[in-house]
Amino acid sequence: MKKVAIIMGSDSDFPVVKNAAAALKDYGIEYECHVMSAHRSPEMAAEYAKNAKANGFGVIICAAGMAAHLAGVVAAHTTLPVIGIPCKGANFDGLDALLATVQMPSGIPVATVAVDGAKNAAILAAQMLALSDEGLAKRLEDDKRKMLDGVIAKDKAMQEKIREI
Amino acid sequence: MKKVAIIMGSDSDFPVVKNAAAALKDYGIEYECHVMSAHRSPEMAAEYAKNAKANGFGVIICAAGMAAHLAGVVAAHTTLPVIGIPCKGANFDGLDALLATVQMPSGIPVATVAVDGAKNAAILAAQMLALSDEGLAKRLEDDKRKMLDGVIAKDKAMQEKIREI
Amino acid sequence: MKKVAIIMGSDSDFPVVKNAAAALKDYGIEYECHVMSAHRSPEMAAEYAKNAKANGFGVIICAAGMAAHLAGVVAAHTTLPVIGIPCKGANFDGLDALLATVQMPSGIPVATVAVDGAKNAAILAAQMLALSDEGLAKRLEDDKRKMLDGVIAKDKAMQEKIREI
Amino acid sequence: MKKVAIIMGSDSDFPVVKNAAAALKDYGIEYECHVMSAHRSPEMAAEYAKNAKANGFGVIICAAGMAAHLAGVVAAHTTLPVIGIPCKGANFDGLDALLATVQMPSGIPVATVAVDGAKNAAILAAQMLALSDEGLAKRLEDDKRKMLDGVIAKDKAMQEKIREI
Amino acid sequence: MKKVAIIMGSDSDFPVVKNAAAALKDYGIEYECHVMSAHRSPEMAAEYAKNAKANGFGVIICAAGMAAHLAGVVAAHTTLPVIGIPCKGANFDGLDALLATVQMPSGIPVATVAVDGAKNAAILAAQMLALSDEGLAKRLEDDKRKMLDGVIAKDKAMQEKIREI
Amino acid sequence: MKKVAIIMGSDSDFPVVKNAAAALKDYGIEYECHVMSAHRSPEMAAEYAKNAKANGFGVIICAAGMAAHLAGVVAAHTTLPVIGIPCKGANFDGLDALLATVQMPSGIPVATVAVDGAKNAAILAAQMLALSDEGLAKRLEDDKRKMLDGVIAKDKAMQEKIREI
Amino acid sequence: MKKVAIIMGSDSDFPVVKNAAAALKDYGIEYECHVMSAHRSPEMAAEYAKNAKANGFGVIICAAGMAAHLAGVVAAHTTLPVIGIPCKGANFDGLDALLATVQMPSGIPVATVAVDGAKNAAILAAQMLALSDEGLAKRLEDDKRKMLDGVIAKDKAMQEKIREI
Amino acid sequence: MKKVAIIMGSDSDFPVVKNAAAALKDYGIEYECHVMSAHRSPEMAAEYAKNAKANGFGVIICAAGMAAHLAGVVAAHTTLPVIGIPCKGANFDGLDALLATVQMPSGIPVATVAVDGAKNAAILAAQMLALSDEGLAKRLEDDKRKMLDGVIAKDKAMQEKIREI
Repeated sequence: MKKVAIIMGSDSDFPVVKNAAAALKDYGIEYECHVMSAHRSPEMAAEYAKNAKANGFGVIICAAGMAAHLAGVVAAHTTLPVIGIPCKGANFDGLDALLATVQMPSGIPVATVAVDGAKNAAILAAQMLALSDEGLAKRLEDDKRKMLDGVIAKDKAMQEKIREI
Repeated sequence: MKKVAIIMGSDSDFPVVKNAAAALKDYGIEYECHVMSAHRSPEMAAEYAKNAKANGFGVIICAAGMAAHLAGVVAAHTTLPVIGIPCKGANFDGLDALLATVQMPSGIPVATVAVDGAKNAAILAAQMLALSDEGLAKRLEDDKRKMLDGVIAKDKAMQEKIREI
Repeated sequence: MKKVAIIMGSDSDFPVVKNAAAALKDYGIEYECHVMSAHRSPEMAAEYAKNAKANGFGVIICAAGMAAHLAGVVAAHTTLPVIGIPCKGANFDGLDALLATVQMPSGIPVATVAVDGAKNAAILAAQMLALSDEGLAKRLEDDKRKMLDGVIAKDKAMQEKIREI
Repeated sequence: MKKVAIIMGSDSDFPVVKNAAAALKDYGIEYECHVMSAHRSPEMAAEYAKNAKANGFGVIICAAGMAAHLAGVVAAHTTLPVIGIPCKGANFDGLDALLATVQMPSGIPVATVAVDGAKNAAILAAQMLALSDEGLAKRLEDDKRKMLDGVIAKDKAMQEKIREI
Repeated sequence: MKKVAIIMGSDSDFPVVKNAAAALKDYGIEYECHVMSAHRSPEMAAEYAKNAKANGFGVIICAAGMAAHLAGVVAAHTTLPVIGIPCKGANFDGLDALLATVQMPSGIPVATVAVDGAKNAAILAAQMLALSDEGLAKRLEDDKRKMLDGVIAKDKAMQEKIREI
Repeated sequence: MKKVAIIMGSDSDFPVVKNAAAALKDYGIEYECHVMSAHRSPEMAAEYAKNAKANGFGVIICAAGMAAHLAGVVAAHTTLPVIGIPCKGANFDGLDALLATVQMPSGIPVATVAVDGAKNAAILAAQMLALSDEGLAKRLEDDKRKMLDGVIAKDKAMQEKIREI
Repeated sequence: MKKVAIIMGSDSDFPVVKNAAAALKDYGIEYECHVMSAHRSPEMAAEYAKNAKANGFGVIICAAGMAAHLAGVVAAHTTLPVIGIPCKGANFDGLDALLATVQMPSGIPVATVAVDGAKNAAILAAQMLALSDEGLAKRLEDDKRKMLDGVIAKDKAMQEKIREI
Repeated sequence: MKKVAIIMGSDSDFPVVKNAAAALKDYGIEYECHVMSAHRSPEMAAEYAKNAKANGFGVIICAAGMAAHLAGVVAAHTTLPVIGIPCKGANFDGLDALLATVQMPSGIPVATVAVDGAKNAAILAAQMLALSDEGLAKRLEDDKRKMLDGVIAKDKAMQEKIREI
């Protein structure tokens, strides 16, 4: 199975991004995790993106805040699917990062998830890889069932809580 | 190669959505195109999503405006990657549709593209399918080069235009 | 008198939602309170909505955050009035949930209240049920008078406070 | 069956509001339609609201733009359910009216529908009245089925359109 | 000199509103301070507004949050100038209150100040009253000079601070 | 009676601003109307503001778009009440001008009206001047009654329109 | 004197960008004008930026819309001052481009002007170059005087217009 | 080398602004740091701006929050490049200050950086001064390399962190 690359624009994004790494690990998907900046290390990011396919990667996840250019810059250098996680910065609750990630011009898509939606980025990457890996597809279906079980359990627990009102 | 399903919440979205269909056709990707509503035909959408994998689909593209629930509802019923196109409605320039599409809760991702970004949705779907189809991957790389050629041509043309200032 | 169903998308919404439950209890309105997710348990929510009328419910209150699809999905499966409470999530102060709840397409309304406006959702449900229950209508009128008395008392107390300026 | 009152803040809102009137007429619901302003005729609006229940009304629909206070002012004077339609004014695509309508303080709910969502306001009113009128409930269910038929027909028509791409 | 009325929609606004009261006191302007709600005590607010001029008031300051209708409702019942203070509520940083206060329809103005701008509301009221009171006008000019002195003092202090960088 | 000064930042604002001039003329209030820019003619604006009181003005109305600094700059140089009209520019529907006008720091208020709310600016100015002019106060009360008559006439006309639905 | 480079992300931005070119021409500043995309021709943009200083450029102006990464990407590859013009795209009135241009992380500034503010970008570039060119500084001061003359002329013309009200 | 002036609208902005001062100091650029208000000390700010060039300044950095007029007012009185730092105030995360700073009318640019982007303001000023100072240009290039080294170091450290997931 192809690997997933996770790139964050700043190591301050790690508390969010690690949820993506943990989810990939759970799925048994091999991944790399890097700090690279579209602005402070542009060539490093460009090189990494250009070689990603040849290096065995199938999907690249990019997490960045503020004027979040990382996902777009990476997408400019690869034809692999790029997933963007807009990170909440000091202001605007991540709206700046969301618009800077999702509003890509025609020709260069970035698959954007929710602000700080790192776990969903990993699931989305897994869904892409599962297109040619039935075992992974099976795991995703199992997870979906577990989520349902989780809701049922919480609904049951709610019946206790509600009695106290 | 797996097929791509395109679902739009209303046929009024077709002028936008047809750009996705045209791009898929250009890539030689087989697709279906449907009108299904998360609100007016919820079971139809749910059934379609549940059976999509078994019916040979690899990716589902959903286009909807306003309180755009379609992509989320479809994603709830499948483990295939779901791409959401937020469509500009009568108000808010599509911000309502963007937030309703991208801000998915943990566990159920929607790969969101720009408002009315139908062509990018198709390219993203192609990138996903190309993970297990080298011919398609090659086509995507060719397209990237053509985009570069297009920019170079436009830059050249600009040198004419600028003389008239 | 018909019952009221309260559904929340996640049990993390309970601190808000319990205000709706408490208000219904005060009005002597029978209610059920459930955790069901439009995305994690879509069929459970659909089934519940479809059977709500037959099961003696008159109004369904749905509380959800982020891309809040729950009220819309429930409204898709019933002709009972559905009240939506947009819940404040991690970002945007609930604007994502507000737009995802209120901007419903023609044909499927959701009666939306303020962000985290759980108590008002309960009062609105009571107002609907009171259309055919004069006793409840009387209680609502009494409450309105008590609110007025509360304002008068606070205005009086203000005259003390203002002296200290 | 109880009547529905429709009040608009300005006759310039009529092109939107008439969709509510037309829908009520279709449902066979008796209604009145008035121009009353929370700011230019506040006592007229207050009196109308105070007497609405005694005058046989069950629901009041209020449509207003900009700093849309009408629904809130009417709700202040009645315990009938009040539905608010935020109307798009000259600026902000109706966001001012939406926030001014939906963000009501605890105790005085307004059931808010989408910006310019007049038809949905009428359907919501019908759903409320249908709580004690099985014939009307039946009509709402029929309409839901017709909406589904409409989607199916549009999906069929789409199969023609898509061939031309 | 005419008096100033300060009305707040809820006593929870008092920590903000008291800055207006304190400023009026400093200017030697007589004032009253009340809790009255556009929604919970509409007639009380209407009566107060209608009689304000006869009762010797020259300006009415209204402070409210969320769907802040208070200033508009008061302005509907008087021809005295009404100043609106949009208060920051639980969400949106007061944007809901700002739009609900400032976006008044033609014919009924509300003189809106910044979110939580209580002191400026008092200064504005004083400026209005000073139109026919030269003593007060003089005090306002003195204050303006003091503000300038304050800036000069802070600029001087800054020269110390900056040395430590 | 004191005069009113109207200043607009650009003559392109005149189609909006002339509504203020016309309203003042209707009230028989003497006014001047000027083009002065906070940025292109800052000293002209500062001088005008500084001398306004001595020159017989009682109120200054400032209309500007985009980063609308005019009202704030004028308010910095006078203790007369300054009314700000945020004008809709090429983008953001006037939100930039609204925030730049209303969010004044403590000490320097600007009485802000709705985006493009020129007529209300004039009424507000009249209300201020009427504090010491009973004849003008009487005219404002007459106008309020006429507005009510206007609503009553429109409500009557509505009864015709509604028959055609 | 150093040259100015103008880069636009798409030739569809030319109607805006040409105002920058025209202004530079007026100032007698030598410039180049190019179409280069951060996403479609990333290496072309990077190369151009890296060599700009050596090629005799002093300032780089970048114009782009939507997720406007161009200015940031160029700034990543040069220490010359980079001026960003956020261009209004199909949605959000340029707010996406504004946030994507201005919200740059620490270390890599972009000097951002107003949405579509191409002329101001050119003036800003001229101001930078004038730091070491007294002739150009003189021209900027002349222009400032002409702007003032323009305002005075428009104010005079206004005195005619106002008579017709 | 020319000096840089830093002006803040209030000394409460100093915790942000000092980052600009510290960065200038690091670059060996002489600077002054002042508290001056566009509203509370308008003539002081105007005088300072008018004389800045003659007093040896090359760039003026202005930091202000809320209706941030300072940069615009300073730019109105000088042809030196003016850099604006929008500061986050009590509400709106600095959006009010950002729009009030960046949306300048044609003719009077303000080079706007990110909300609270004080360090970038200093770097931008240094970039401008470096146009005629090769030593400073060299320092900026060194800094760019150090930023790259910093990213590489953080990427290396990340490889440790990621092992713990």
